[in-house]
Amino acid sequence: MTLGVWLIGARGNVATTAMVGARAIDHGVTDTTGLVTAREPCARLDLPGVEEFVFGGHDVRTEPLRERAAALSTDGVPPASVVDAVAEDLDHIDDRIRTGTAVNCGRALELAGDDLLEDEHSLRGVVERIQADLTDFERSHDLGRVVVINVASSEPMPATPDRYDTRAAFEAALDDDDDEIPASSLYAYAALSDGRPFVNFTPNTGSALGGLEELAEARGVPHMGRDGKTGETLLKSALAPMFAGRNLHVMSWEGHNILGNDDGLVLEDEENQAGKLASKGGVLDGLLPDLEHNRVRIDYTPSLGDWKTAWDHVHFQGFLGTEMKLQLTWEGSDSALAAPLVLDLARLAAYADERGEGGLQPHLASFFKSPMGVDEHDLSKQFVTLEAYVEAHAGDGPTSVGERDRTADTAGAGTKPEADE
Amino acid sequence: MTLGVWLIGARGNVATTAMVGARAIDHGVTDTTGLVTAREPCARLDLPGVEEFVFGGHDVRTEPLRERAAALSTDGVPPASVVDAVAEDLDHIDDRIRTGTAVNCGRALELAGDDLLEDEHSLRGVVERIQADLTDFERSHDLGRVVVINVASSEPMPATPDRYDTRAAFEAALDDDDDEIPASSLYAYAALSDGRPFVNFTPNTGSALGGLEELAEARGVPHMGRDGKTGETLLKSALAPMFAGRNLHVMSWEGHNILGNDDGLVLEDEENQAGKLASKGGVLDGLLPDLEHNRVRIDYTPSLGDWKTAWDHVHFQGFLGTEMKLQLTWEGSDSALAAPLVLDLARLAAYADERGEGGLQPHLASFFKSPMGVDEHDLSKQFVTLEAYVEAHAGDGPTSVGERDRTADTAGAGTKPEADE
Amino acid sequence: MTLGVWLIGARGNVATTAMVGARAIDHGVTDTTGLVTAREPCARLDLPGVEEFVFGGHDVRTEPLRERAAALSTDGVPPASVVDAVAEDLDHIDDRIRTGTAVNCGRALELAGDDLLEDEHSLRGVVERIQADLTDFERSHDLGRVVVINVASSEPMPATPDRYDTRAAFEAALDDDDDEIPASSLYAYAALSDGRPFVNFTPNTGSALGGLEELAEARGVPHMGRDGKTGETLLKSALAPMFAGRNLHVMSWEGHNILGNDDGLVLEDEENQAGKLASKGGVLDGLLPDLEHNRVRIDYTPSLGDWKTAWDHVHFQGFLGTEMKLQLTWEGSDSALAAPLVLDLARLAAYADERGEGGLQPHLASFFKSPMGVDEHDLSKQFVTLEAYVEAHAGDGPTSVGERDRTADTAGAGTKPEADE
Amino acid sequence: MTLGVWLIGARGNVATTAMVGARAIDHGVTDTTGLVTAREPCARLDLPGVEEFVFGGHDVRTEPLRERAAALSTDGVPPASVVDAVAEDLDHIDDRIRTGTAVNCGRALELAGDDLLEDEHSLRGVVERIQADLTDFERSHDLGRVVVINVASSEPMPATPDRYDTRAAFEAALDDDDDEIPASSLYAYAALSDGRPFVNFTPNTGSALGGLEELAEARGVPHMGRDGKTGETLLKSALAPMFAGRNLHVMSWEGHNILGNDDGLVLEDEENQAGKLASKGGVLDGLLPDLEHNRVRIDYTPSLGDWKTAWDHVHFQGFLGTEMKLQLTWEGSDSALAAPLVLDLARLAAYADERGEGGLQPHLASFFKSPMGVDEHDLSKQFVTLEAYVEAHAGDGPTSVGERDRTADTAGAGTKPEADE
Repeated sequence: MTLGVWLIGARGNVATTAMVGARAIDHGVTDTTGLVTAREPCARLDLPGVEEFVFGGHDVRTEPLRERAAALSTDGVPPASVVDAVAEDLDHIDDRIRTGTAVNCGRALELAGDDLLEDEHSLRGVVERIQADLTDFERSHDLGRVVVINVASSEPMPATPDRYDTRAAFEAALDDDDDEIPASSLYAYAALSDGRPFVNFTPNTGSALGGLEELAEARGVPHMGRDGKTGETLLKSALAPMFAGRNLHVMSWEGHNILGNDDGLVLEDEENQAGKLASKGGVLDGLLPDLEHNRVRIDYTPSLGDWKTAWDHVHFQGFLGTEMKLQLTWEGSDSALAAPLVLDLARLAAYADERGEGGLQPHLASFFKSPMGVDEHDLSKQFVTLEAYVEAHAGDGPTSVGERDRTADTAGAGTKPEADE
Repeated sequence: MTLGVWLIGARGNVATTAMVGARAIDHGVTDTTGLVTAREPCARLDLPGVEEFVFGGHDVRTEPLRERAAALSTDGVPPASVVDAVAEDLDHIDDRIRTGTAVNCGRALELAGDDLLEDEHSLRGVVERIQADLTDFERSHDLGRVVVINVASSEPMPATPDRYDTRAAFEAALDDDDDEIPASSLYAYAALSDGRPFVNFTPNTGSALGGLEELAEARGVPHMGRDGKTGETLLKSALAPMFAGRNLHVMSWEGHNILGNDDGLVLEDEENQAGKLASKGGVLDGLLPDLEHNRVRIDYTPSLGDWKTAWDHVHFQGFLGTEMKLQLTWEGSDSALAAPLVLDLARLAAYADERGEGGLQPHLASFFKSPMGVDEHDLSKQFVTLEAYVEAHAGDGPTSVGERDRTADTAGAGTKPEADE
Repeated sequence: MTLGVWLIGARGNVATTAMVGARAIDHGVTDTTGLVTAREPCARLDLPGVEEFVFGGHDVRTEPLRERAAALSTDGVPPASVVDAVAEDLDHIDDRIRTGTAVNCGRALELAGDDLLEDEHSLRGVVERIQADLTDFERSHDLGRVVVINVASSEPMPATPDRYDTRAAFEAALDDDDDEIPASSLYAYAALSDGRPFVNFTPNTGSALGGLEELAEARGVPHMGRDGKTGETLLKSALAPMFAGRNLHVMSWEGHNILGNDDGLVLEDEENQAGKLASKGGVLDGLLPDLEHNRVRIDYTPSLGDWKTAWDHVHFQGFLGTEMKLQLTWEGSDSALAAPLVLDLARLAAYADERGEGGLQPHLASFFKSPMGVDEHDLSKQFVTLEAYVEAHAGDGPTSVGERDRTADTAGAGTKPEADE
Repeated sequence: MTLGVWLIGARGNVATTAMVGARAIDHGVTDTTGLVTAREPCARLDLPGVEEFVFGGHDVRTEPLRERAAALSTDGVPPASVVDAVAEDLDHIDDRIRTGTAVNCGRALELAGDDLLEDEHSLRGVVERIQADLTDFERSHDLGRVVVINVASSEPMPATPDRYDTRAAFEAALDDDDDEIPASSLYAYAALSDGRPFVNFTPNTGSALGGLEELAEARGVPHMGRDGKTGETLLKSALAPMFAGRNLHVMSWEGHNILGNDDGLVLEDEENQAGKLASKGGVLDGLLPDLEHNRVRIDYTPSLGDWKTAWDHVHFQGFLGTEMKLQLTWEGSDSALAAPLVLDLARLAAYADERGEGGLQPHLASFFKSPMGVDEHDLSKQFVTLEAYVEAHAGDGPTSVGERDRTADTAGAGTKPEADE
């Protein structure tokens, strides 16, 4: 059964890098370093192979993948030789990318010159178009399952997310063409209501609304988010427990991120930055409840291209009032760090869906800055949860046909019967 | 029941800072920040209070504690005002410090001008003198229990520790005045054979010989070590699991430590440095089995006084062969970091001894660079073990008199009947 | 002849540290490390001794110096023992500090609760009160000369400084109670029109208006500014010439400053931050004309107290398009760095005044982020100018009575006859 | 008149990068960023163009340049596309590289498997072979002048360099086949005695022996050295004057360099490291006479390839005894930093030779860690000397035929008549 991986923001850096990487693994020109699911213990699960993924997606941009990949390779990731090796594959994927929606996506995206003025009469119309694109993708490529993963740019947060706390409220807002429902939540609704797993790798809202969680639960569809934990925040979630465990009092934690890609440009817009900063800041607040001062800066430094440098300055107090410091600088390629996690999540979401494990996926918490439904931010403890999940499933072997009935129905009907019906 | 805490290296920086700190807590001039046992969950155990500790110890140096504390306070730890507040207490402790032994302690200590030429006819004589000092300490102050903690300077490692793999072999070597048995192991033998808990906070050999482990097991005495995990290695044990968990390939991890205290001076001696470096390096080897290059440098920089700065440079490879970097600098006061752990270990060793939990103490692994009997170096997982221990004991309440019989015997007899007799 | 040193912002951290330091040198409890004039070649000039300075000043705050100094000493600078040694001297200086003006000083100072509502009927009235305070100071202490140095907090920049391009225009604005003339310029006018040297150590406007430069020139009074070059910018002015000299192309220079004192708090106010950032940024623009991206962030991190940490990230391109990086972190006490320069400038301004060297003082450029009348920002070249000045004056010996006529008149009359009369 | 540039160590990284760069400039595939002579004011001199250089050289290795360049390009410098563009040029240069000598070059080079056992009967024989190779190069390519530049690996320092303090003594030692005369000095002697300019870009001895200086002076041949100032030391020479100028007392300056190329491997050998460390350390000793502690570490970290990271930790004291810190990390490609300087030096040495400016070249001090005959290590002041030289020569225009007589003779005779004959 072939897995379809549908990426929202398919022409962006993370998506491009993920697709190049998966194809490069298939061609044998790169290895699986960076893929969590390629190491023990996850490697023991019977997960779909990344080399067999069929990619498609939505984007508001039109730049061919081959060009995006070539542009990325000038910063070294992916290497030019790898891009060459998969260039034809990228052309094929290009044909499977449909025009996305940037409804309610904020000023920054508009300024970026993206075309927002589509023939979108209504939010319902947008949702239907998304669903039609997904169904068409599934049928055209004879896919056994389609996982939807959001890797689009930052968008503004809705001012009052509580308004969408139930499925009924969310759907009423849809009917009213509510102008605060973000695009990411439209994608989530479109996917979940058709029984397709949805993973939100961005800080955007996505499925993190009460109404959408209710929907996913009711349909028995796995979903998870949000905001991939790739760089500085990953470090924080590894380091902060050290201070807590040793009863060291962190007085201030300053983080300064500089980056030169489109994400940096979009984040210069304060409206779009709010969600990102909340997500990054929240990790420390959870791990260090006594933290007095916690600030994260994100600045756009064009010369860095797709690379990010983060400087963290941790000022803490130990025994006898002794003030001490930890400083760190992290120089990473966001795309290189994020891309393999996108592939991991596609594999793990498909695996859960195959087993009928709907709703939130707390064992995936280690992948996210703001893991939905999980309070634990300690990276090692999050890894333990993942290991326990693997332990509980390893040796399951491929699921039997019977277990996959639900999926089979879906493939036939285009919609999945709700679990509670 | 009052707890006696006997420190080997009692006039050193760590010991002095620990004693100043405990007395300062008693006087209410500092708080318990930095004490692991003062935070949840350990705070739920019925541990002996640090403010009631009676301190004593051995040292080959003669500098009064008040002077050492004053010298330390010029580097800010402990603060001068705190030293003033406890100065009289330090004078009292001075009276309880006996001349130690530096037998087989290496050239560096000799060069430091310490007096090695004592009237020590034989190793057995040295052991007996140590035991007599401990017994005298216990009786003079009417102590319910004495915990022995080694915080002395680095000494050379025995070339062939396997020679002492059984208790019989160790004792035979004692009888032969073997010139490779390090002083730390003489202290360990003296303590354990009299039924006193022994904690080795240094990289020295201490009780880490097969023969001494056998002895501790036989006598049912708790012992643990070695090498307190206070700074750069603490960081490594928090960070390295992040790389492993994300399947990121660390190509090289360079660590450079500069420090200006006596430890730095002693470590300039290569013979003495070997043990330290082995201990520091081992943490990464355990956590990152594929690590290609792992070096730790320790250099003496006089201007830093009792402060240590560590620079770590981690060069790693992620998805698509992308090379990335993490650099960190850690500026810490070794004494401020180590001292509260010494107090923690005294409390936890006494607690275990009170409950008859003899032998190695794996739940204390998080305190050590080279935790005896424990392979796990992941700091968070080590904390989980400690938390599980607390969970299993919390609510136990104070131990009954009956349970303490074994100890009572000891107090009377000066030796503890062996468990297998 | 005794030198009076009048500090605007006399109760602030820099002023307090400067006064504590000068008195401590007199008491022999500290040395002259950090004083540029105490080293070769400046040491060869016959400068007034800092141990003989008589201090006075203006401030809108009322906190006693002894308390400010004690508060500073909790961050270690000055040390508590030094503060103790000079505490009585500080009490005497307290009696010589008059209430200052915060006219047009911006919202931040108002929010800080400072008292702006004085019985100041008019700007002319403010100027006259300042002048009366200075004359009174000079007479009461029988001073041969009074140098005025501005070390107050940041204030907003006037929107159109060109409006004050001539002395006539400035004075007309004064008469009109123009609400954009900043307090620092009122102080400058008060000093210069009475023939008193004026040094502006802050980023504020001070004497940097065409009308005030004209006045200083006409009166033959030395003045100089602005914005003491103490930390990160000092480093930049030492490092940037290296890149230029080697034809290395700096693509981006990011600077992030975190500090915890009142300056940091005041600078959180964007209106007040503008002048500071312009001054800091200008150094690089001058030294690296091809610099593509130059940003300076200043953030308030309370736990740092009077200490500042700066992280600079320099991304540059060399031969064959090679991209390389320099990162640096600077941990300095702003007060410790600034205070000796304030003393240096008092000595050098008095020396110039004694020799009738009126107008701008380009040989003092190395002391300032935005040296008035000087385009050269290369620190070494600025030092060369200072050395050349010393070379030209060394061996002059004390000035004769005849040369000091102008000063003598002043002392008698309270005002100095204008040079062009 | 075509300039021949003869590189000792022609198959090494620096030489390869310099040659690739010069050819790439000629092909228009890179620009002159990083070349000091390409910027003002040097650009005003009538220097030979790097695009017209004819390259040749000596090396004990046999790896083709194309392979070395390709290997280097895996670390990104030079870029693979640039190597492709000049690959044929490299093949041509290959034909002009002769087997060099590694006489007296130390154990490390031997261990590296280089072939030391040549048919070199005597040192005189070695010199004659070198000279024959150079003459052949000059004649075969009809070169107007040949500049010899040493860019070979580190070799041991002679124990008693004073033994070669006169030309007579050096030549007597040659005749005696003295086994301490390093290879670099044989090259220098061979070049200088034939009237060819010699530049020593390495820490090796080269022409830094009294006897060779005497020879160069007598023959009127320009020579200069030693040890190209490319990275950490460059930074030190820019930064240390800042501390001195501000009367800040540097208590310790720790430098730790990690690098992964052959230089790093050779420097692991302590014998070879001595010269390098002396040269690096000397800069600070000259600029900061009161520096208490100055250490430089060089370690081999294979994963870094041709890149070097340096961490510097500067601990200094300012006013009121305040201890402060500067830390910096430098991530540079040694080859990218060194290569353009090699081209600069070839141009400037040829220019001086054309004008008959024999002997040491103090205006080139900024290029070297240990500038021969120059005590000034302040980078900015060294730049000022270079600028003054340009100022004195700019507008000279090409030299007349008459001025070039000396050179013309040389071309004919293979040797240059000594100036004092």
